[in-house]
Amino acid sequence: MNEPVDYLQINLLGAAEQQRRLEKVRAGMRRDSIEHALVSSNANLYYLTGRVFRGYIYINVATGSTPLYFLRAPLHLRGEGVNTIGRPADIVPLLAETTCGAAGNVALELEGLSYANAMRLARVFGLEAPAADISPALRAARAVKTDAEIDMIRRSGLKQVLVYQRIPHCYQEGMSDIELQIEIERASRLEGCLGIFRCAGGEMEIYMGNVLTGANADTPSPYDFAMGGEGMSPSLPVGANGTIIKPGAPVMVDMNGNYTGYMTDMTRCYCVGTPGEEARRANALSADICRALAAMMIPGTEAKTLYAKAEEMVRLAGMNAWFMGHRSHAGFVGHGVGIEINELPVISPRSRDILAKGNVIAIEPKFVIPGTGAVGIENTYVVGDNGGVLLTDAPEQIAQLD
Amino acid sequence: MNEPVDYLQINLLGAAEQQRRLEKVRAGMRRDSIEHALVSSNANLYYLTGRVFRGYIYINVATGSTPLYFLRAPLHLRGEGVNTIGRPADIVPLLAETTCGAAGNVALELEGLSYANAMRLARVFGLEAPAADISPALRAARAVKTDAEIDMIRRSGLKQVLVYQRIPHCYQEGMSDIELQIEIERASRLEGCLGIFRCAGGEMEIYMGNVLTGANADTPSPYDFAMGGEGMSPSLPVGANGTIIKPGAPVMVDMNGNYTGYMTDMTRCYCVGTPGEEARRANALSADICRALAAMMIPGTEAKTLYAKAEEMVRLAGMNAWFMGHRSHAGFVGHGVGIEINELPVISPRSRDILAKGNVIAIEPKFVIPGTGAVGIENTYVVGDNGGVLLTDAPEQIAQLD
Repeated sequence: MNEPVDYLQINLLGAAEQQRRLEKVRAGMRRDSIEHALVSSNANLYYLTGRVFRGYIYINVATGSTPLYFLRAPLHLRGEGVNTIGRPADIVPLLAETTCGAAGNVALELEGLSYANAMRLARVFGLEAPAADISPALRAARAVKTDAEIDMIRRSGLKQVLVYQRIPHCYQEGMSDIELQIEIERASRLEGCLGIFRCAGGEMEIYMGNVLTGANADTPSPYDFAMGGEGMSPSLPVGANGTIIKPGAPVMVDMNGNYTGYMTDMTRCYCVGTPGEEARRANALSADICRALAAMMIPGTEAKTLYAKAEEMVRLAGMNAWFMGHRSHAGFVGHGVGIEINELPVISPRSRDILAKGNVIAIEPKFVIPGTGAVGIENTYVVGDNGGVLLTDAPEQIAQLD
Repeated sequence: MNEPVDYLQINLLGAAEQQRRLEKVRAGMRRDSIEHALVSSNANLYYLTGRVFRGYIYINVATGSTPLYFLRAPLHLRGEGVNTIGRPADIVPLLAETTCGAAGNVALELEGLSYANAMRLARVFGLEAPAADISPALRAARAVKTDAEIDMIRRSGLKQVLVYQRIPHCYQEGMSDIELQIEIERASRLEGCLGIFRCAGGEMEIYMGNVLTGANADTPSPYDFAMGGEGMSPSLPVGANGTIIKPGAPVMVDMNGNYTGYMTDMTRCYCVGTPGEEARRANALSADICRALAAMMIPGTEAKTLYAKAEEMVRLAGMNAWFMGHRSHAGFVGHGVGIEINELPVISPRSRDILAKGNVIAIEPKFVIPGTGAVGIENTYVVGDNGGVLLTDAPEQIAQLD
């Protein structure tokens, strides 16, 4: 902890933390019969080294083996295993020197690399097609956070809570949803929010998050986020659309919590004046569901039982029609979060995920009530031995904006 | 122009404009012997329909044929050719009904789809691997903008110029680079900037742009942008790093110009007090290079000759060592821009691109001067019959911040 950090070391995690993460990846590699792999997506480079660089990291399934780095840009980084390459083909002779030499069956990130790039890389190794996919092993490893990762997420949560406390000060009478959002963006950025919102898969796009009020909440979005919104342009059809914030209408704020490269995900509702009875009831139910699901976050629990519990509570309250949308319904009530916003486990009816200690899960039971708008909260929890531990600890009732 | 827009029509472009774009894509399909294709990336959906939706657009090489749409989410969109599907496999029987039935050799976006997704989609059509790549045809079509697209880019340019005029008002004494950037972000957003910064390929990540001052400009970044910077976190190592803005030190501002789904790219330099002689000389040279390259933007010109011209001007001025970086040099001086920041043509020494009327090109001759920092401007031009027409028309000298 007290060693000075050498920022030019390729591995910013320290040897022990990196091996901890690699051992988890290796468990997946053994399960998938993968001997070795080449990783190059920014999210996974960050996971394995604590930094984004331009190049590749080579990992071997052998326990304790040291990764190799192939840097494509002269970044002046150093450390054991660092090589500089001009093009991907340079990896092959370098690998042959340092390892067994049989690089042919190397696994690639087939969920992250484009088809064209995966084929180019496979051909470099003399293959007609990629030999195996390292993505599932990485995805599974990243679902179970180490203590160091949980610490990063906890730090993001503390910052996000600070910013959310300032939201009423961001409001001025007559503002639209987007105007309020812009002030929250500024407050977030001044608190250290990195702004970038990493989503795995390339289909989901969002800028800094979502502020929804009024009927706009009921506009379906093409993206697989819990809530929709028309957005400000058909080129980015999600979120705020310029609706003026009206007295009595809830304003749902779900903004970017990426302060450390790891994010928390948090939603709270606000209102000018007093929200209606229905909105308050839905918001209280949302908070109750969060609490109930957090209590169920015991290692070994099936993720789908959390969804079932949420659905049951909603049914008993008679709010099914509004749950996770109204004109269009999201198919989940929670999701893993970390470097990206859509990590494992998924809390959905057909999820096959089993909760494990160290999962970090955002729970977002939200309602879209016709005539009222979007209501509900979202919290991020880390799964511990005795249930979920809250990382976004802030008042949950609908807060007054004015 | 005066028809009311039906926002639930899948095609927001109008039939004529869509056919205009499709004809350009078809030229590439014929060149690549592609009969038909399925397109699903957000950038290309936006190009072909004027909106992002969740699903696929099917296009046939036959001139004037109508595209088919396969929507994966119930977005309540309508129009000729709209189908709703539950999963990709549902496309096959629907295609068989409406077209020749021989869907087997359908081309996919192999530069955009992940390997895993491309293989899943290929299998849906009974293929062992994707039959062909529609990405080059789309990339080539998108490089030559239609008048409607140029109008969108022009509108972004007008907004971006307005925001840049306000930058001196964003500055307060003692600010750091990131603090100034946050105020510019806010000013941009209030002017209608959509925030999202689309880059093709998945390797490049940036939030809202880049503000560089002092020695930070000389920190290499792993991303393929013209300028580097350490950034605020090793998870996003580019741009501002918290350097305090000092009197006499240039501040280079290169912020997001996406106001319409289409972007301009624009850079200007600012300074507290008076910049040094060297900085002023480099900035004036940058503006001269922009002007010289714009004059060369005649349809039929080889893109690489523009790079050669820039290099020659830099050499004659004795500024080679600082051109496009100092410790690390970017390998280009300009690039196409539109829906994404890295479109064709590329203005680099080995580019094989030939300029065409309707290309929209950002030219960014920039210098990193040791002891001074980053200096230079960037303008966006549309290639016309008589040379490049400026879309980011604003004063080019180093502007005073205070």
